[in-house]
Amino acid sequence: MDQALFTANNVWMLVATVLVFIMHLGFSALEAGFVQKKNVVNILFKNAMIIAIGLLTYFICGFNLMYPGMNEGGFFGFAGFGIAMPADNLAAYAEGNFGIYADGGYTYWTDFIFQAMFAATAATIVSGAVAERIKLESFLLFSAIFVAISYPITGMWKWGAGWLDAAGFYDFAGSTLVHAVGGSAALAAVILLGARKGKYQSNGSIKPIPGHSMPLAAIGVFLLWFGWYGFNGGSVLSADPVGVSLVFVTTSLAAAAGAVTSFIASYALFKSHDLSMVLNGVLGGLVGITAGADLMTPLAAVLIGGVAGVIIPFSVVFFDRIKIDDPVGATSVHLVCGIWGTLAVGIFGSKAGLGQLWIQLYGTLAVCAFSFIFAFALMYILKVTIGIRVSEEEELKGLDVAEHDMNAYSESVEQSAYQLSVK
Amino acid sequence: MDQALFTANNVWMLVATVLVFIMHLGFSALEAGFVQKKNVVNILFKNAMIIAIGLLTYFICGFNLMYPGMNEGGFFGFAGFGIAMPADNLAAYAEGNFGIYADGGYTYWTDFIFQAMFAATAATIVSGAVAERIKLESFLLFSAIFVAISYPITGMWKWGAGWLDAAGFYDFAGSTLVHAVGGSAALAAVILLGARKGKYQSNGSIKPIPGHSMPLAAIGVFLLWFGWYGFNGGSVLSADPVGVSLVFVTTSLAAAAGAVTSFIASYALFKSHDLSMVLNGVLGGLVGITAGADLMTPLAAVLIGGVAGVIIPFSVVFFDRIKIDDPVGATSVHLVCGIWGTLAVGIFGSKAGLGQLWIQLYGTLAVCAFSFIFAFALMYILKVTIGIRVSEEEELKGLDVAEHDMNAYSESVEQSAYQLSVK
Amino acid sequence: MDQALFTANNVWMLVATVLVFIMHLGFSALEAGFVQKKNVVNILFKNAMIIAIGLLTYFICGFNLMYPGMNEGGFFGFAGFGIAMPADNLAAYAEGNFGIYADGGYTYWTDFIFQAMFAATAATIVSGAVAERIKLESFLLFSAIFVAISYPITGMWKWGAGWLDAAGFYDFAGSTLVHAVGGSAALAAVILLGARKGKYQSNGSIKPIPGHSMPLAAIGVFLLWFGWYGFNGGSVLSADPVGVSLVFVTTSLAAAAGAVTSFIASYALFKSHDLSMVLNGVLGGLVGITAGADLMTPLAAVLIGGVAGVIIPFSVVFFDRIKIDDPVGATSVHLVCGIWGTLAVGIFGSKAGLGQLWIQLYGTLAVCAFSFIFAFALMYILKVTIGIRVSEEEELKGLDVAEHDMNAYSESVEQSAYQLSVK
Repeated sequence: MDQALFTANNVWMLVATVLVFIMHLGFSALEAGFVQKKNVVNILFKNAMIIAIGLLTYFICGFNLMYPGMNEGGFFGFAGFGIAMPADNLAAYAEGNFGIYADGGYTYWTDFIFQAMFAATAATIVSGAVAERIKLESFLLFSAIFVAISYPITGMWKWGAGWLDAAGFYDFAGSTLVHAVGGSAALAAVILLGARKGKYQSNGSIKPIPGHSMPLAAIGVFLLWFGWYGFNGGSVLSADPVGVSLVFVTTSLAAAAGAVTSFIASYALFKSHDLSMVLNGVLGGLVGITAGADLMTPLAAVLIGGVAGVIIPFSVVFFDRIKIDDPVGATSVHLVCGIWGTLAVGIFGSKAGLGQLWIQLYGTLAVCAFSFIFAFALMYILKVTIGIRVSEEEELKGLDVAEHDMNAYSESVEQSAYQLSVK
Repeated sequence: MDQALFTANNVWMLVATVLVFIMHLGFSALEAGFVQKKNVVNILFKNAMIIAIGLLTYFICGFNLMYPGMNEGGFFGFAGFGIAMPADNLAAYAEGNFGIYADGGYTYWTDFIFQAMFAATAATIVSGAVAERIKLESFLLFSAIFVAISYPITGMWKWGAGWLDAAGFYDFAGSTLVHAVGGSAALAAVILLGARKGKYQSNGSIKPIPGHSMPLAAIGVFLLWFGWYGFNGGSVLSADPVGVSLVFVTTSLAAAAGAVTSFIASYALFKSHDLSMVLNGVLGGLVGITAGADLMTPLAAVLIGGVAGVIIPFSVVFFDRIKIDDPVGATSVHLVCGIWGTLAVGIFGSKAGLGQLWIQLYGTLAVCAFSFIFAFALMYILKVTIGIRVSEEEELKGLDVAEHDMNAYSESVEQSAYQLSVK
Repeated sequence: MDQALFTANNVWMLVATVLVFIMHLGFSALEAGFVQKKNVVNILFKNAMIIAIGLLTYFICGFNLMYPGMNEGGFFGFAGFGIAMPADNLAAYAEGNFGIYADGGYTYWTDFIFQAMFAATAATIVSGAVAERIKLESFLLFSAIFVAISYPITGMWKWGAGWLDAAGFYDFAGSTLVHAVGGSAALAAVILLGARKGKYQSNGSIKPIPGHSMPLAAIGVFLLWFGWYGFNGGSVLSADPVGVSLVFVTTSLAAAAGAVTSFIASYALFKSHDLSMVLNGVLGGLVGITAGADLMTPLAAVLIGGVAGVIIPFSVVFFDRIKIDDPVGATSVHLVCGIWGTLAVGIFGSKAGLGQLWIQLYGTLAVCAFSFIFAFALMYILKVTIGIRVSEEEELKGLDVAEHDMNAYSESVEQSAYQLSVK
């Protein structure tokens, strides 16, 4: 491994890290756009704290829990608190031995920060689903513990060379290990939390609660798509030109196909051009391609994204029918399309086959089950101790005033009087 | 070509691809900001669909139509549907022969995805100009066909080694081939579509229809500038350090000069500090430098951008005088400054000269004429078949409710009552 | 220095440049979000002009004033107007001598554009603090002169191999040279300008003037954090893998720690979950780590960012008590945390020590004093000549209407009547 190639690889991994970082703004904007005006500060606050908590907990224990693998001793492979560059690493670099760590793909520090950004996204997925009625402290505690413990354990099963890896399970960039994990936790949380007041009415009708800003939601989706080039492209774990560029092609085409088929399917279902369905169709396509972005032909990517786009409106309707109230559609996007994408590895591309399909199925179910149970238990403990839901009065007022003493949008001081005079 | 250099080149081209991608969010935000509140969902929907349709059509036929060049047989050089890495390519890479494709600048997959992002921008330019009154389906059909057929044909004339290339025409990153092409199509579409109701009144006065959100418009322009580093910087087609960094300098200075001169010129014209003029001045400077970003000294870049900035307010006034109703100023920015930038290659920089100026002139006119006629014919066919304009009632209501059954912004359920009580 | 390594280095520096560029959108959005609705166009206008003016003045004289150093002759080391690649540079590259400029880290053009983006941020810091009452022309003149002369002079003291560099002062990426410089200028400007009308009332009470859009402010902070990876990561001045990736880790952890401690400290102070404090806590952590991002362990980064996060709410309260009216908290974030970060280099990390702490202290005070005095004198001259403050009537109306004849947000034409009918 020569120095220049090592440097080019590491540059790409750092760029990918930056792109994954901005997905946190993407989630923030998407979720803020899809909630009501009275809960916007709350969702922004949660998202700003999640990236912070996610990075810190991953620093404290998550990274060492996830990556040493099950065989390197210690409790479940836990390698101790904090992070520090392995002692032999710097010396090796100094001697020009650039391949010592991660086959010359990147440094130890790059490894940590790329994976830390990834980890934090899993918790962020939950925040949209539980929006508009969860208690802030309970949510932050939940996120911190989930990212510190549950996400790294299931991550280790595959990416830490654990039992699923040994069994041949494949998940390139995390359709299961990130998205379905986050989606499972979201589902568990929503079940315990219950629907927003007034959403499902006693006469059986479902009251639409429109998001307060479509431009914010659209900004969010475009930024998520943007960041996904780092999420999937960085999962190549080097700047390998053919590898990364193929992943760019499959990721792009899956997202595009998701938009188009979601447009068509939702038009067929609702006879309307539904922007939120198209936006979630893009995300569904992206989640769907994530497990096999490196294995697919361009055409297979179009098919995988296209199926995900069709899934979206049906899944959203399904969850509403069973009274799972998810304001942003996170379970449909991340859990359902995450499972779909994981299965698709057994159907399309270079690993397709019945045996692989079977292993993909039980792998994703095992991971989802663990995540769901962990999240359910954790949320249940919070529910019976400090409580997880704001009071009815606070929910009606909105969490911005109830928990934050502020509004997301303010008129100018003296504005009202002036506005009248200019008109 | 050694592996490390090939890898570094390809990393840059992928980063450039990501930057061009985010220009689609830039266009979305800019156009959404400049339209009325009642048409915001519609413009976001169109922009989300255009990038999806653009990528898919470029995958289906655009890439193969544009790049094999006129000499490689088939109808107008068309090389067949779909994309696939050339058979000898992977083998060559495996043997360490990294220079086989694109002189080692990037892989086949990178080539496709970078060019696909480019192609989609041409259609996006149209969407702003026709905003607030075009039928959604007609627009999407128009975009798909324009990107699939017209854009690649004129693109091939120069970048596919066609007749304009042979004639010595120069257009580094597409002042003509992307921007004036999009601008010509926009002009054709606006002529057939007509002005928004009430814009040009019977007594000759022009009613201002202000955009609904200046922050959105500003976000759009900053993101477009941001993405332009990939648009121009990626057009070097490798990471050549001197080449790409010079392009960064000229691109930056032209944008900056466009802002300053547009500020001064619009102040002189309107006696006001007009934010929309400054924003369009930035874009005018960027479009202007695009044809010769690799040929100019920093000072020449300042002059080219500066002239573009002066053009903007005059051009906007001119189009309003002749009743071409373009809500976002797309024709001024992309068509007029695109032509200016193309001509500037004959005036400034290392190719300057009367002969070159002449060839730049007829090259840009030929491309604009083809694009205008193609767009006009296509839009005319749509007009006499499925129709291109919404009904007067729908226009008054706004396209968000008329075509999408939703509003861009919603108050919270129960918000109104609560708001009154806290004040 | 081989070509591939040079290319990889230069790619990273260009990516860093693009990231620093987008910080200007970050500042725009943050400041726009924190001002009143009636002053939004004004703040966007100022920020769009600052980046333009900053780039142009840096091209005209700033770059040459800052970088040749004090020893290379000319007035204060000034090397003449304009920029041009050194004559021997291209020839050396052509011969394959890639190490000739900047030790092979990047080209001359990259050097200019990266530093130009940096320079423009210093002026942007001021714009938030003086928002809502400064005259547009006075501010633009102030910015242009400050970026053209004052910023490069203090920058030269350290980065241009001047006297502070010789004395052993350390400031990796500009806690002092960019942030405290901008913060000092902001403080000087606010003192001369006075508080917004009605902010500090005669009975001693302080009237809160809430920002008009928390989503905009949050977008701004996320984009600033995003861009900071280029700001700090690019300050390595090459793509050195261990160096840049360590900087990514320390920068990330400091920002995260700033968010968490600011959350806790502001909750302790105000008994509320204050979003603006968390957002400023992120920025405080980022400013704090900037001086020593390359010297710290991950744990030291957490501590430095954590202290900065605690500083934020106390500093904001302090400045309000002494009637320094800073609508966005720029003095707390950039001046106070900038000084803290500079001192932290003497407390933590590989340069820690009493001697170093002392030199850090007098270095930062010298730079702050120069910047404050320069800014104060310049603003004073503007005050007694063309005036720096809008009239009371204009302030009440808002600068958008008073200086720009437009509103940041507009209802649709005919919207009002229609809105009533659909409800």
